[in-house]
Amino acid sequence: MVKPEESKHVCNVDQFNIEKGETISTLMKSFAGTGFNAKRLGMACEIYEAMVKDRKCVKIMTLAGAMVPAGMRAVISDFVRSGFVDILVTTGANLTHDLIESIGCHHQQGSDQVSDAELHEHEINRIYDVFMPNNAYESMEDFIRTLKFDKTIPVVEFLDFLGGELERLPAEAVRDSILRTCHEKKVPIYCPAFTDCGLGIQLAMNNRGLKLDLFEDLNRMIGKAWDSEDVGVFIIGGGVPKNYTFQALQFSPNSASYAIQVTTDRPEPGGLSGATLSEAVSWGKVNEKARTITVICDATIAVPLILAYLKDTCTA
Amino acid sequence: MVKPEESKHVCNVDQFNIEKGETISTLMKSFAGTGFNAKRLGMACEIYEAMVKDRKCVKIMTLAGAMVPAGMRAVISDFVRSGFVDILVTTGANLTHDLIESIGCHHQQGSDQVSDAELHEHEINRIYDVFMPNNAYESMEDFIRTLKFDKTIPVVEFLDFLGGELERLPAEAVRDSILRTCHEKKVPIYCPAFTDCGLGIQLAMNNRGLKLDLFEDLNRMIGKAWDSEDVGVFIIGGGVPKNYTFQALQFSPNSASYAIQVTTDRPEPGGLSGATLSEAVSWGKVNEKARTITVICDATIAVPLILAYLKDTCTA
Amino acid sequence: MVKPEESKHVCNVDQFNIEKGETISTLMKSFAGTGFNAKRLGMACEIYEAMVKDRKCVKIMTLAGAMVPAGMRAVISDFVRSGFVDILVTTGANLTHDLIESIGCHHQQGSDQVSDAELHEHEINRIYDVFMPNNAYESMEDFIRTLKFDKTIPVVEFLDFLGGELERLPAEAVRDSILRTCHEKKVPIYCPAFTDCGLGIQLAMNNRGLKLDLFEDLNRMIGKAWDSEDVGVFIIGGGVPKNYTFQALQFSPNSASYAIQVTTDRPEPGGLSGATLSEAVSWGKVNEKARTITVICDATIAVPLILAYLKDTCTA
Amino acid sequence: MVKPEESKHVCNVDQFNIEKGETISTLMKSFAGTGFNAKRLGMACEIYEAMVKDRKCVKIMTLAGAMVPAGMRAVISDFVRSGFVDILVTTGANLTHDLIESIGCHHQQGSDQVSDAELHEHEINRIYDVFMPNNAYESMEDFIRTLKFDKTIPVVEFLDFLGGELERLPAEAVRDSILRTCHEKKVPIYCPAFTDCGLGIQLAMNNRGLKLDLFEDLNRMIGKAWDSEDVGVFIIGGGVPKNYTFQALQFSPNSASYAIQVTTDRPEPGGLSGATLSEAVSWGKVNEKARTITVICDATIAVPLILAYLKDTCTA
Repeated sequence: MVKPEESKHVCNVDQFNIEKGETISTLMKSFAGTGFNAKRLGMACEIYEAMVKDRKCVKIMTLAGAMVPAGMRAVISDFVRSGFVDILVTTGANLTHDLIESIGCHHQQGSDQVSDAELHEHEINRIYDVFMPNNAYESMEDFIRTLKFDKTIPVVEFLDFLGGELERLPAEAVRDSILRTCHEKKVPIYCPAFTDCGLGIQLAMNNRGLKLDLFEDLNRMIGKAWDSEDVGVFIIGGGVPKNYTFQALQFSPNSASYAIQVTTDRPEPGGLSGATLSEAVSWGKVNEKARTITVICDATIAVPLILAYLKDTCTA
Repeated sequence: MVKPEESKHVCNVDQFNIEKGETISTLMKSFAGTGFNAKRLGMACEIYEAMVKDRKCVKIMTLAGAMVPAGMRAVISDFVRSGFVDILVTTGANLTHDLIESIGCHHQQGSDQVSDAELHEHEINRIYDVFMPNNAYESMEDFIRTLKFDKTIPVVEFLDFLGGELERLPAEAVRDSILRTCHEKKVPIYCPAFTDCGLGIQLAMNNRGLKLDLFEDLNRMIGKAWDSEDVGVFIIGGGVPKNYTFQALQFSPNSASYAIQVTTDRPEPGGLSGATLSEAVSWGKVNEKARTITVICDATIAVPLILAYLKDTCTA
Repeated sequence: MVKPEESKHVCNVDQFNIEKGETISTLMKSFAGTGFNAKRLGMACEIYEAMVKDRKCVKIMTLAGAMVPAGMRAVISDFVRSGFVDILVTTGANLTHDLIESIGCHHQQGSDQVSDAELHEHEINRIYDVFMPNNAYESMEDFIRTLKFDKTIPVVEFLDFLGGELERLPAEAVRDSILRTCHEKKVPIYCPAFTDCGLGIQLAMNNRGLKLDLFEDLNRMIGKAWDSEDVGVFIIGGGVPKNYTFQALQFSPNSASYAIQVTTDRPEPGGLSGATLSEAVSWGKVNEKARTITVICDATIAVPLILAYLKDTCTA
Repeated sequence: MVKPEESKHVCNVDQFNIEKGETISTLMKSFAGTGFNAKRLGMACEIYEAMVKDRKCVKIMTLAGAMVPAGMRAVISDFVRSGFVDILVTTGANLTHDLIESIGCHHQQGSDQVSDAELHEHEINRIYDVFMPNNAYESMEDFIRTLKFDKTIPVVEFLDFLGGELERLPAEAVRDSILRTCHEKKVPIYCPAFTDCGLGIQLAMNNRGLKLDLFEDLNRMIGKAWDSEDVGVFIIGGGVPKNYTFQALQFSPNSASYAIQVTTDRPEPGGLSGATLSEAVSWGKVNEKARTITVICDATIAVPLILAYLKDTCTA
């Protein structure tokens, strides 16, 4: 709560100018001195920069929404490759679509102004304005059938194994793979609703030897929270990945020191994806002294802008 | 796609009046002749009524969002008790909060204008404007420790077992329990992200004998889709429950003939919770001839109104 | 700011039941004991009831959005007829569409899934899922040409005159007219952006003798604020009507004692329609002790529910 | 409507990379090959570029929302100075806040987590997270009292006069003024709800000689639409400026060939600010062959990004 007395010392709003050839990082710095969501985005950049520069901070990215279909696969991978993410918690869909690109299938620029009945007839699945031919599932199935298991493992271990298996595929196709980059950088991937995606369903149907131990995932995730004194979370889109990460912090003595949230949801209907980061303080998920900001923006716009800022300010 | 020629035959907007003592069902009927979300809500009532009156229709409710903390526990249970739901697919949170009420703890009317740091100090967790004292978790843990297992089962089977166990508790506290009502009415509960809730986490910590087989849940859910020629879905809030249900329909030869969605999300950012029901047609999740409607409204407002309508039109 | 100590005394969330034949007012009372927007809607009903029962309170309704095309003409009129509104501040569009219904033209139930190019060819204008044949403007023009003026008047005076002129039209068509009901009940209508509507544009083109004195409107509106010690505002949809009303309160020594807002906008992007009622306290538009609530809901759903509640609780 | 056959020829989604030192214009080009709102923003840049390069196109910017308080004053002025805007249609608030900065007062970086009652006590007005000391109004009043009129003029003429008067003020303070830049570049400013702002109210109270002729504004605005064969509209935030501009196009034989909309509103509640650009085709406001795009984003983020793109692609 800012006291009005203090407000006398606050800075003026920066009525900034834009130059020709303006870089993203320069604009994000200008944004930090403005208002509304431009300011929030500028602050998100600053807080993430502090997270990266805080050597003890364990940086958790939580990922929901169809980021890979929308063209954000290399952006997410670059967060991992650049060392901006230490743990990834994600929906299964982003992994499924990452795998689809890895095996050489592609998402297509489509349209939302289209007959879905005709698309269905042509076996093209729509994700808002992105199309994915349904035969991508068949190609994925062919690949999945080449995997051999006969054990019970947590999902986090299976996903690391899968990332390694991608090395068999053409280098160009997997260079920007999220699964493979996480495997290479030893960034664990937690996927709490793993049976809720195409990859999960195909494993259920084709690999009867594989059993998943999701309680073990949970124990390991809580263990991570327990072991990390200094945690920063970067929440993209909310959902189960957000809740699962916050739950691990709730059931450990630690809480996040940094928290950035990019969402288009709002708090009043009470759903977790729109819940404020302040609310998380009451649960012990976020520290009351944490630096936090929520940016109300489509993640496909905000997340690449944050990456570009970090590449300019946090890489050699 | 309505042809303008046909539009000449469309009805006038009903400039309806409201009478003193107006019942909900009467207003919903008026709404069906208007525009915008009032019309959509009126149509949702009509479509749900058709679903109930179609004896072959298997009615699936998907439930996300903090409906129980917001006071909607008896409303959801009443959908089940009245025969308006045949399968429930839900987040773990709603089951956790249902259990908390069942063991005699309560959610409290709070406020979002509050210091979350002070709440944390007083061990009160906030869910938007609802408070939940943290010791509810301890009471829940005491109850969970009384449960004995030593086997590997799908979540759907465990939840049915749990619903039965609630009969040990005081009748008044469990009368409107979702878990118990589903057990009584033999309505299976699927919970695909079960480790992502307080109940799941406490089972992981306290009941080492229990192992969950989520692949078996998936197979059973797909089996349900495969066996149901005529499916109607009532989607509250999206998330994993929506995706899991639609995925089962996608991987079966059947698709939904009726679909009603209550959400505050929007389609353009590409997330599943805001995706249109038309998009689901391209995937084969919803039939191109299905009767569908999306109501853009907080579920705490729309869902009770729909229940009241159904009670007047579909019960003896 | 609720203190956590006080929170110990807060009530439990009411896990309410719904009965067959449930009336709207009963449900709204239940809602007041819940959470999220259901609670907010219940509180809006309670606050409006208090406004009506506070004999000294001057009740201002501000109206934006296409409420008349969506079938809410009689609902708005009934607020006026029942004495729930003392001053109406509105966009011109609602008056234009009210006039269109008054002269015997109708809005039609259409669809948003339609070719707008074909609609244009057929001279049908679309307002989301409502159609309005363009020839309604011609009928309106014929009526407007029958009006005779040769003076400079404030808009508020012109609109009262227009309401009186409607008595020439068939009783059935004007019974639920907003313009006519306001004229009868002597409720002044302020329309600050009057040249921004079909009615305004046709007057500009056809009635060269009429001149509008919008400064005089402003002075009268500020005078109303100045004279009303006790003000309650019911804000439907924000926009210029909200700002104009709050501006009058800002430039008078009085501020609103009650404020209810129904909107789907959110505060973070900084626009007035989504601004919180708390923000209005800083400007002196709303009293810091005022009873206020914002309901995040489509007005076509919330406003009829509030009317039904008031008819049950505030009329003989 | 895209045919699925055509969809076979659509491009793959561009899984783009971001380089160190990435410029905004490069990223916007990448965005155009993705999905969701990133793609929409990329397309908005491309369409605006086409508008600027189409020499016959009359470019209308419509401006709502508190852009100046949020630090966007120089950005808006730069659109005008760079020749990207030929006509400005705006709310009065943006002009009021532009004038406030011109006379040497400043908006301050504040917070939305603050006691509005205390702010009120300290005479600080809040606009979401921006503060404005109330004495800015007094300074503005002092300036306004120096203006002398005794005539009836349209608002567009008064605002041009006011822009000229700003030359009396220190160059540094007015260099990025919207009013002054428009005056210099001979870009007319239409402000249809002019009495709904601090500037309007102070003129009403202090300059009794001035009379506004808003019908004349309307005639001139329609004249502009009538005279412009090729129109492009850039809609920031909707509201009266959007409606007024579209209304002028509706009542002229021309319609927009290009339309870009940046908004956070959605179409389903039927309000104009959230209405699709397709809907405007049915009214004859936008041409059915027009290039159009709506970007769902806070304008404080999207508008500067578009400006930066245009500066790189459309200036020497």
